[in-house]
Amino acid sequence: MSQLKIVIAGHRGNMGKEAVKMVSNHKRFELVAVVDSKNTGKKIKDIEGLMPLDIPIYEDIDQCLSEQEPDVLIDLTNPKFGKKHMESAFNHGVRPVVGTTGFTEEDIAELRHLSESKQLGAIIAPNFAIGAILMMKFAETAAKYMPDVEIIERHHDRKLDAPSGTAIKTAQLITEVREAKTQGHPEEKEELQGARGADIEGMKIHSVRMPGLVAHQEVLFGSVGQTLTIRHDSINRESFMPGVQLAVETVMNLDTLVYGLENIID
Amino acid sequence: MSQLKIVIAGHRGNMGKEAVKMVSNHKRFELVAVVDSKNTGKKIKDIEGLMPLDIPIYEDIDQCLSEQEPDVLIDLTNPKFGKKHMESAFNHGVRPVVGTTGFTEEDIAELRHLSESKQLGAIIAPNFAIGAILMMKFAETAAKYMPDVEIIERHHDRKLDAPSGTAIKTAQLITEVREAKTQGHPEEKEELQGARGADIEGMKIHSVRMPGLVAHQEVLFGSVGQTLTIRHDSINRESFMPGVQLAVETVMNLDTLVYGLENIID
Amino acid sequence: MSQLKIVIAGHRGNMGKEAVKMVSNHKRFELVAVVDSKNTGKKIKDIEGLMPLDIPIYEDIDQCLSEQEPDVLIDLTNPKFGKKHMESAFNHGVRPVVGTTGFTEEDIAELRHLSESKQLGAIIAPNFAIGAILMMKFAETAAKYMPDVEIIERHHDRKLDAPSGTAIKTAQLITEVREAKTQGHPEEKEELQGARGADIEGMKIHSVRMPGLVAHQEVLFGSVGQTLTIRHDSINRESFMPGVQLAVETVMNLDTLVYGLENIID
Amino acid sequence: MSQLKIVIAGHRGNMGKEAVKMVSNHKRFELVAVVDSKNTGKKIKDIEGLMPLDIPIYEDIDQCLSEQEPDVLIDLTNPKFGKKHMESAFNHGVRPVVGTTGFTEEDIAELRHLSESKQLGAIIAPNFAIGAILMMKFAETAAKYMPDVEIIERHHDRKLDAPSGTAIKTAQLITEVREAKTQGHPEEKEELQGARGADIEGMKIHSVRMPGLVAHQEVLFGSVGQTLTIRHDSINRESFMPGVQLAVETVMNLDTLVYGLENIID
Repeated sequence: MSQLKIVIAGHRGNMGKEAVKMVSNHKRFELVAVVDSKNTGKKIKDIEGLMPLDIPIYEDIDQCLSEQEPDVLIDLTNPKFGKKHMESAFNHGVRPVVGTTGFTEEDIAELRHLSESKQLGAIIAPNFAIGAILMMKFAETAAKYMPDVEIIERHHDRKLDAPSGTAIKTAQLITEVREAKTQGHPEEKEELQGARGADIEGMKIHSVRMPGLVAHQEVLFGSVGQTLTIRHDSINRESFMPGVQLAVETVMNLDTLVYGLENIID
Repeated sequence: MSQLKIVIAGHRGNMGKEAVKMVSNHKRFELVAVVDSKNTGKKIKDIEGLMPLDIPIYEDIDQCLSEQEPDVLIDLTNPKFGKKHMESAFNHGVRPVVGTTGFTEEDIAELRHLSESKQLGAIIAPNFAIGAILMMKFAETAAKYMPDVEIIERHHDRKLDAPSGTAIKTAQLITEVREAKTQGHPEEKEELQGARGADIEGMKIHSVRMPGLVAHQEVLFGSVGQTLTIRHDSINRESFMPGVQLAVETVMNLDTLVYGLENIID
Repeated sequence: MSQLKIVIAGHRGNMGKEAVKMVSNHKRFELVAVVDSKNTGKKIKDIEGLMPLDIPIYEDIDQCLSEQEPDVLIDLTNPKFGKKHMESAFNHGVRPVVGTTGFTEEDIAELRHLSESKQLGAIIAPNFAIGAILMMKFAETAAKYMPDVEIIERHHDRKLDAPSGTAIKTAQLITEVREAKTQGHPEEKEELQGARGADIEGMKIHSVRMPGLVAHQEVLFGSVGQTLTIRHDSINRESFMPGVQLAVETVMNLDTLVYGLENIID
Repeated sequence: MSQLKIVIAGHRGNMGKEAVKMVSNHKRFELVAVVDSKNTGKKIKDIEGLMPLDIPIYEDIDQCLSEQEPDVLIDLTNPKFGKKHMESAFNHGVRPVVGTTGFTEEDIAELRHLSESKQLGAIIAPNFAIGAILMMKFAETAAKYMPDVEIIERHHDRKLDAPSGTAIKTAQLITEVREAKTQGHPEEKEELQGARGADIEGMKIHSVRMPGLVAHQEVLFGSVGQTLTIRHDSINRESFMPGVQLAVETVMNLDTLVYGLENIID
């Protein structure tokens, strides 16, 4: 297999920095340029705090894609730029892999139409953590056969919201495959308020907050005589890179737009 | 939905006793008879050590199926009786759910042919532990995306073999979806022999044996910055009953023979 | 070491049955008699549902202790009989190990006085689960050095109360060694009520209820860059027997009354 | 309580950087100077890659201690400098907290003598991870009452040795409180070599190596009907800082040298 030529937009953000590192270290990928809102004409190595890479920076995405002729554009900017960048990509025969959230359903429909008319695959993924995607996918299946479910999510103690977005999303996915049910003993009683956790259609969610934790979730299924536990532990942003890599490799074989990494996993 | 009429063969074994309890307590199932090698003409309640059920015992399976006209035969005997019982079931228009291991491929082909010619569904399942089936199925999928895998299985200390059959089967399923790979540091060194566990194509398996344990397995997947863990804990034979129940409900909608509970789970 | 001769009171209860089994199988213990409210003159083997043991049953404890001259009396009855039995034991030079709850402080003071005046050791233990005792003891120490604590307890779904008594007792022990503190982010917000669990002086307690669970508790301590977890899993009443055994062996070296198994563990 | 004035030696190493950050952020500590092998006369903020702190650097430790009159010297250099620095500290009435390994027994005896003659407390700790220290301490106690023990340690896959030093040290501590014993079934058989792990006097040790892990260990104790698990998870070098902080606070109340953090924890 020949190498894939890749352009990255949003290379100075947290995800972007990891993506530059991943692409430049990957033996089947070649980083050919980055798109930025400033510094056109400079190299990555010229910018303080970035890697010592001899890779050109462009402010004009059309010029970039036209001169560099990449196979894939990785976009880690925001929905506004993301949409514009995807349109440019399609116009230059480039497949986009986009990691921003916030696209409207109209945006997605429009971009899918463009993708199909050009027969150029595209992937938009609000979450690239492949382990978390697998956890949610498995949880959805398991709940069909073991409908008693509780979720325990654990995060560092600087987190403001409880439960976490992933816990809520997991519970919502499960509500699509099982009916609401009362879990626990019908007459159970909380001697101390909150002991049994938050409730989404009978599923209990428990949020642990502590120093020394990063981002962890376990989904617990119980049935007579047995339990099944699916657990994801994430310790840093690097954990998104295997998902980006999978998306880049998969987008080359697509001729439509796929929304959500879970839809390229089977 | 009307009730399903059920006959059980092998009702005095460990699994059989649990099945009698499950079927007689299940609101959509009706236990109409049991098949035994002795005690024809008696009731279950007449036999010491069994439940006080007013359910007839038959030695002749054909007489039983002919008189009772059940929907489903649950067979928990052995491959020799199992095959004969399945043939009787097909002859009387009854769908068999069979929990014995040891059928040959020829047996299965022959029984499938019979099942299809009669358009009567049938299920043979060597393992009814639904949580373990889900664990193996999820492990097979996860290994495609997170190919670094280790298995830790934990059992009571009366177990003679290590690793457990389930651990070996899990590893074998994974070898079908990922290539052999060297895990750990290429130059890692066991200062104490055995520390890194048993090896199946690079996957490490660790067997823990202790009083206080029953039957537990976790399959661990690692990738940059994250791990995914799938864990099954089983504490008694009752854990097989949700699988039997699922098989009974599913077999009514089949018109062929399915081998392995994993093939009715999606 | 010579064998210890043992009498058991309360042998027909759940704990009592396990104690009869443990003592009669233990190579350094000899079961010489049991005390019961009926069946005097019979043997254990004469009573339906009990073990086939050729051990005499007494209704009169004084006659029993006088004739059998045991070293230790294991009492698993109730506080009313327990106190009377302890007094008889002291009068006959027998050391009592008592597993009932509900003694008043006056009872205990009085019995301790008796124990010391006779120079006969005695142990009263409301909880014989040695693993749970160790968990609470370790939790108390750990909280001095890692004061951020959360407790997750998991039980079968027939349990009515939440949190469990053990979880509440663990939290109370910890309040004796650390000051109340606000855990989590000072501005954290429960988007769904109950997510952050019950609260005892800042410590959060989460109660999971599911089929397939028995009785489990983990105490989690967090500090910068690390967590420490202490977890106890109990699967049946047999789990109390190592504690009874430890108490029997220890009571022989005591010349006072000890209340609580935690006080003979160092 | 007034603030403690602190000098740090070895401030440019990994541990040293964390110590500078910890001390300068701690409200009861005041960083007054650092000792370095170069850069005398400069400030920390003058050195590239370090924190913007207006704190003086000294090459001469005696000049530093004489001018700054600190309460405590934190030394994170090496045994050669460590010993010399401790002697200087004692001469200037300063209590040393030292985090280097490799002192000989003679060194320690000599330094303890010096410490006691000056009535100045001192702490040498080869391991400051307070959670790991607690884990080992609890494991040693638990093994007295639950002598069936297995250790599972999990580390990133760049680690060369297996088992880890901490796992071996934990097992060795346990051998001091329990006799060697055969664990598992006496006739158990490894169908695949290594399944049952490495062996230290009957205790089994299992080493897991994976991307996505950092440094984790669980010590598992089993007894009839129950298990007890003690687990430590460490995600970065910051995890040593609570131990350093505890040592600094404790050394003020000592008048002898203590070797090993476990000896200031009760």
